[in-house]
Amino acid sequence: MIPQSLDIVAIGDAIVDVIATTDDSFIEKHRLPKGGMQLLTYEQADELYAAMGPAREISGGSAANSMAGAAALGLNAAFVGQVADDQLGAIFAHDMRALGVRFETPALKSPPPTGRCLILVTPDGQRTMNTCPAASHELTVAAMDPELVRSATVTFLEGYLWGPERPRAAMLEAARIAHAADRTVAFTLSESLCIGDRREGVLGMIDAGLVDILFGNEHEIRHLTGCSSIEDCIASLSSKVETLVITLGAAGSLASKRGEVSQIAAAPVTKVVDTTGAGDLFAAGFLAAQCRNRDVFDSLHAGAIAAAEVISHFGARPEADLKQLVNL
Amino acid sequence: MIPQSLDIVAIGDAIVDVIATTDDSFIEKHRLPKGGMQLLTYEQADELYAAMGPAREISGGSAANSMAGAAALGLNAAFVGQVADDQLGAIFAHDMRALGVRFETPALKSPPPTGRCLILVTPDGQRTMNTCPAASHELTVAAMDPELVRSATVTFLEGYLWGPERPRAAMLEAARIAHAADRTVAFTLSESLCIGDRREGVLGMIDAGLVDILFGNEHEIRHLTGCSSIEDCIASLSSKVETLVITLGAAGSLASKRGEVSQIAAAPVTKVVDTTGAGDLFAAGFLAAQCRNRDVFDSLHAGAIAAAEVISHFGARPEADLKQLVNL
Repeated sequence: MIPQSLDIVAIGDAIVDVIATTDDSFIEKHRLPKGGMQLLTYEQADELYAAMGPAREISGGSAANSMAGAAALGLNAAFVGQVADDQLGAIFAHDMRALGVRFETPALKSPPPTGRCLILVTPDGQRTMNTCPAASHELTVAAMDPELVRSATVTFLEGYLWGPERPRAAMLEAARIAHAADRTVAFTLSESLCIGDRREGVLGMIDAGLVDILFGNEHEIRHLTGCSSIEDCIASLSSKVETLVITLGAAGSLASKRGEVSQIAAAPVTKVVDTTGAGDLFAAGFLAAQCRNRDVFDSLHAGAIAAAEVISHFGARPEADLKQLVNL
Repeated sequence: MIPQSLDIVAIGDAIVDVIATTDDSFIEKHRLPKGGMQLLTYEQADELYAAMGPAREISGGSAANSMAGAAALGLNAAFVGQVADDQLGAIFAHDMRALGVRFETPALKSPPPTGRCLILVTPDGQRTMNTCPAASHELTVAAMDPELVRSATVTFLEGYLWGPERPRAAMLEAARIAHAADRTVAFTLSESLCIGDRREGVLGMIDAGLVDILFGNEHEIRHLTGCSSIEDCIASLSSKVETLVITLGAAGSLASKRGEVSQIAAAPVTKVVDTTGAGDLFAAGFLAAQCRNRDVFDSLHAGAIAAAEVISHFGARPEADLKQLVNL
């Protein structure tokens, strides 16, 4: 029996967010996918950065944000992700460790630089993400310590990192290692991987029984399954994943565990400032509750509270004392 | 006659702020100068950074913040300061230019890196600054374009940059160029330069008639003059600088122009979140009004409003539409 020293380990993009406010005309002029995410080349990122307003830099990355949330909720968390040996990489590493998240992936000594995500927040609180993943997509199996995975109750894999070949291989290997050690594997979808070739790969992993807990918003789940009604989506996935968690934006969220569905409303928010990180923190809350052996309903509730906190301010990592808000 | 194309040009530290919240016990444990500023070596900065919590990075620098404010108030502003050719330098330059501030100082191609200021904000909103100036203190006369100074109504010099020899020489040269072109020179004191050798140098510059508008808080002005009452401070300086502006924190501010004193209360603030940049934005508002030929009373008022905006959120640069708040 391997000692279970970690609650959760995540593999995901290691990215610094560059957050600026803007208006809808800027989003339209630059043909940005409002509310969504697009990948940019260096040249495109430089061009957009030059055009956008003054920004603040805050460490980000979807699963990394979830680990920030998990640590804030009192979990023993670790993160695996690729930064470069540069200033943004040092900022990312500092912020992870300052939160108490174990982060030991060695920095790349040569280019590309640490990844960044240019996030434009419109007055309605919606965020439009423009990601230049750079070093983040250079993650290899070799950079992932199998012992971290074996020692964690949950291994959490980020859909954004499913696209590039080497990180995908690292995540598949982590899922296999986790299952061989009788651990739980959670996977969060991202819009871009629910279409085309990538969809086949994700469905293959799900069909192979490698995913125990699957997160997605309603659009992603529909794209993935090809079903139009949420009921059909659940029906098509419930035999393949033990727990399916679907976020419904302002309408709340639901989860189906072995076909039994629980649904809750979103937690109230006085003012939605910036929706960046809503899904990441929802997953953090849900998984933290699961690690503490709470039932699905309590886990949805924990996810909703963590998500509500993060959308009430700029940046995708919690600022309030989540442990006080979510009693696990 | 040189064409007057700029309202204001500032020479100051080019620094990225690294802002984290903390509590008073952290300030005490690390013996930090609460509410003040200290200079750190690289080693000290690394040590403090490792100990402090997750942070957000926002471009800073005292006079650079003032230029951000001046641009937000509609002024045609420029900034001279030294960054390195690295990621933080690129962030600093982007944020200046995105605000419409002309910033053309060439980046250093070799070490040291771009300067940073580790700012710890306590629950009372006070900021404690720990600066590792690095490249910022490598500014030379050669990096300063005399035409910028000749073409600006006001040349604004930052006290923090008075310590190191080369930047001090650049600032003195700028003051001489400005006066030769019949322009106004403004200087803002910083705590650290009001004592010891540096005090003599500042008094020498003032005695030589190189400063037309002098900014300082009450402590700095007392240290500089050696007088204990504000009245005596004013008396000792009013024959040497045309306009003396003294900020009094929550008690407001006053200005003495050729001995005639105006005083106003601070602008109301619902909640003081982070006092970083209060003095910088006060100077921005005051100087912007002066550039628009407003009188001293109106200028104090503009300074108070700009300062009130910046202390109501994290970071030392305006987030609200200052032009709407201050009608110049």
